[in-house]
Amino acid sequence: MRQVPTELAAFAGWLTESNAPAAAGTSHFDSALGLAVRRWCPPALGLPAYASAEEYLEARRALGAAEVTRRLLRAAGIGTLLVDDGPLPGELLTPAELGSAAEATTHVVTRLESLAEAVADRAGRDTDAFLAELAAAIDAARARSVAFKSVAAYRHGLHLAPEPPSRAELWTAAERWLRTRRPGGRLGNEALLRHLLWSAVDTGLPLQLHTGIGDSDLRLHNADPALFTDFVRAAAPTGCPLVLLHCYPFHRQAGYLASVYPQVYADLGLTLSQVGGRAPVVLAETLELAPFSKVLFSTDAYGLPELYLVGARQFRWALSEVLTGATWPAADARRATAAIGAGNAHRLYRLPAAPS
Amino acid sequence: MRQVPTELAAFAGWLTESNAPAAAGTSHFDSALGLAVRRWCPPALGLPAYASAEEYLEARRALGAAEVTRRLLRAAGIGTLLVDDGPLPGELLTPAELGSAAEATTHVVTRLESLAEAVADRAGRDTDAFLAELAAAIDAARARSVAFKSVAAYRHGLHLAPEPPSRAELWTAAERWLRTRRPGGRLGNEALLRHLLWSAVDTGLPLQLHTGIGDSDLRLHNADPALFTDFVRAAAPTGCPLVLLHCYPFHRQAGYLASVYPQVYADLGLTLSQVGGRAPVVLAETLELAPFSKVLFSTDAYGLPELYLVGARQFRWALSEVLTGATWPAADARRATAAIGAGNAHRLYRLPAAPS
Amino acid sequence: MRQVPTELAAFAGWLTESNAPAAAGTSHFDSALGLAVRRWCPPALGLPAYASAEEYLEARRALGAAEVTRRLLRAAGIGTLLVDDGPLPGELLTPAELGSAAEATTHVVTRLESLAEAVADRAGRDTDAFLAELAAAIDAARARSVAFKSVAAYRHGLHLAPEPPSRAELWTAAERWLRTRRPGGRLGNEALLRHLLWSAVDTGLPLQLHTGIGDSDLRLHNADPALFTDFVRAAAPTGCPLVLLHCYPFHRQAGYLASVYPQVYADLGLTLSQVGGRAPVVLAETLELAPFSKVLFSTDAYGLPELYLVGARQFRWALSEVLTGATWPAADARRATAAIGAGNAHRLYRLPAAPS
Repeated sequence: MRQVPTELAAFAGWLTESNAPAAAGTSHFDSALGLAVRRWCPPALGLPAYASAEEYLEARRALGAAEVTRRLLRAAGIGTLLVDDGPLPGELLTPAELGSAAEATTHVVTRLESLAEAVADRAGRDTDAFLAELAAAIDAARARSVAFKSVAAYRHGLHLAPEPPSRAELWTAAERWLRTRRPGGRLGNEALLRHLLWSAVDTGLPLQLHTGIGDSDLRLHNADPALFTDFVRAAAPTGCPLVLLHCYPFHRQAGYLASVYPQVYADLGLTLSQVGGRAPVVLAETLELAPFSKVLFSTDAYGLPELYLVGARQFRWALSEVLTGATWPAADARRATAAIGAGNAHRLYRLPAAPS
Repeated sequence: MRQVPTELAAFAGWLTESNAPAAAGTSHFDSALGLAVRRWCPPALGLPAYASAEEYLEARRALGAAEVTRRLLRAAGIGTLLVDDGPLPGELLTPAELGSAAEATTHVVTRLESLAEAVADRAGRDTDAFLAELAAAIDAARARSVAFKSVAAYRHGLHLAPEPPSRAELWTAAERWLRTRRPGGRLGNEALLRHLLWSAVDTGLPLQLHTGIGDSDLRLHNADPALFTDFVRAAAPTGCPLVLLHCYPFHRQAGYLASVYPQVYADLGLTLSQVGGRAPVVLAETLELAPFSKVLFSTDAYGLPELYLVGARQFRWALSEVLTGATWPAADARRATAAIGAGNAHRLYRLPAAPS
Repeated sequence: MRQVPTELAAFAGWLTESNAPAAAGTSHFDSALGLAVRRWCPPALGLPAYASAEEYLEARRALGAAEVTRRLLRAAGIGTLLVDDGPLPGELLTPAELGSAAEATTHVVTRLESLAEAVADRAGRDTDAFLAELAAAIDAARARSVAFKSVAAYRHGLHLAPEPPSRAELWTAAERWLRTRRPGGRLGNEALLRHLLWSAVDTGLPLQLHTGIGDSDLRLHNADPALFTDFVRAAAPTGCPLVLLHCYPFHRQAGYLASVYPQVYADLGLTLSQVGGRAPVVLAETLELAPFSKVLFSTDAYGLPELYLVGARQFRWALSEVLTGATWPAADARRATAAIGAGNAHRLYRLPAAPS
């Protein structure tokens, strides 16, 4: 973001998925993620690892937001950024600004629910216009994106009917939603969510699905990716790759799905940052069943540039621990590192440049 | 308890949540908890760690129940005991006797279902009298307790409707329950359980909720604390703290809830005793998401004084292992130890004396 | 099997529970199980551990299928094999051929669904004849088997009604199934599955239940053994032992059930092979609650003789790691090893010879 809060409580608020302030007497910094920030970020600002939160924020103020952002993003060493366009613009850097600060190539991932909500804001209450404009918007997004993304797990849950809605079901659901929503209102209708998912699947672009942990809107038990099994099977004939994001604490379930369905991939995203010192274990649990050709890296960083650096360092450290701890031959460990760190993503998202 | 069985099978029966005897050819001592008892308790009776069960029980017989109880409880080194009044008195020590034997301050936690059952035993089949006496009993319990506790997870499951029952729903449920129950009969009606939960929430005292493992009455999948999410949200405006007990094997789910909802806390209770040598891992899994300001210690000891000592030693050992294994700076590790071991509980339960 | 494919992709196809080819650019060998095969099997063919898949298959071709099978099975060192008769014969070795190649005693486990499907193939559409022949077939199987086995978790899910179907419900379900099925058609009807389970329970032989991971037909969340709790309770008075197979990622739930219900056992089966280098952790998680007198060993090997050797080595290595890592006294570790490795199975399945 352009201006990061430099007050401790406000800064720590970006370290949690919660929408609420910390409980009385506590700080969102007193968590595994808070410690991971203190482990990896102070050196990029010239401080020792595990500098206190107060010292870190003091250095942050002294350097200024632009310089801090540049330093943290470059220290992350990420060559290619896939940026979700869902979060509202304004306060945040645009993908182009982000790529420039990070010296990275950027590509866009289109968030389906945000796209539909923007179309609804334009279409007003005209159901036919909404559905036609939505189709056109998805078609346009396809051209500029490397993937689609859905938060259906949080809006409804992954226990949705596996087939596309019928035309009548879709029309009725859209009509009711448009009639009752206010501008900016969120899309949570099950039939509309299924329509978005199937519209994305039909483009052939990879479809990312939030699963497992996320913000405090979700019901965690409804975000178990195993609940999505019937959809996975129904979508299999299209060949559309499905990328399960976050997954925790259902990452073993995600690993199972990645192991038995050719089109399913697992990307732990923010999980490896959130769990701090336990990242190697959580990654190892995922790789119990998931073949290493089906696991991806991402930071899911949002808001704080710290989260890019933490995500990158946590991933590299965790993967190195997993492969060292295992009895893998060195050549296989190198192959797995290259695949999970970049190769799988380049193949899956058809990114123009091969990883170095 | 006043007289602990000194026969091996009868003693081992207190080491399991099962109501049934061990399978033929097996002993309840052949478990992680059995080994933990043999690890921590023999030294308090003058035997080496890992003395055999037979040697241990022989020493127990020689010393007598009162002396053994005193030795084990004092070795636990617990300064403040919160005692659930739910288990039926008679065979067990009263909180005052327990505090005296342990040289500890004691406070009472009132178990909601036991309270309602005692009121029903007195009120007979008069629904109005039952509801009025129940309200008075909860009010009286509030004055003498530091918290309420519910076993709704085992009586019904945590998938209960999140709102309080309407007056009509409550009256009908109470009338039916009173009409069909026998003296001592358990309360399992969903509407009555919700009424108890909301009655407790309205007092503002912390509300402890059994979740996860427990005795053989429960359906484990219905005790996932994630199922309680809608209640957590509904109760948020009251500010009433909710303490998830036991949690296993859903302790990561509990950690998630503690991380996103300010009023939710996690207390692994008997889990750290039950899982024996794996306690550090289970605690570490909980702390993947739960901030250390939201995690509490308890033994959930019941019946055997051994379980107080085992609970205390398991917790201290596990937490020490977690913080040593992590890359935490020493000052943060000390802060986390003080918080989880005593400080969080003193703040949450508003205990009169600060921890030493 | 008689002829193992010696092409890399075809061979690797036996290393996955998936029915689908590996995703483009990937191999089923790039998994934890693939690495476990390369860890344990090459030495049996005169190659170093972790020989490449290509070198291994070259050695396999040179030695020939019969010699390779003999070497791998004997290296596994399994004294007694319980062989599921469910997989279709023809390509696979018979139990007698398998026992001869492995120099092991063999016993038969009868798979209930396969038995019922074979009866239906013979009985055609005559419901009365089908039910009578099924009863006779179960009775005959009882005499030649040491256990029954069910895949109800995959055909329907473990959330089935706990009681036997009424005679009318059974007859109606059988009549409908026979009327609509084609020869070879699978049995997935809930009432018929319950009838099979109760028919097996009534014989008193141990009943093995697939739970958790399996092939790509299943819905993983419906294979949580906790869903089977009501059946476990309903079947308790019969004393019939219930063996939960595979269990992953619900092995902690299985451990809980094994700890509170005397007749429940846990056998991780293929899980310890599938998870490769993580087998010690998964076994340790199971033993958090399961008493060591309630845990069994099996390979669940199928098709490839490699899977017998991998299953045996993984189990021995994992158990040794678990007991070394724990703080168990040596005598208890030896007792647990003997129990889990052979003693529990001999007691449970009433195998004629005691383990050496």
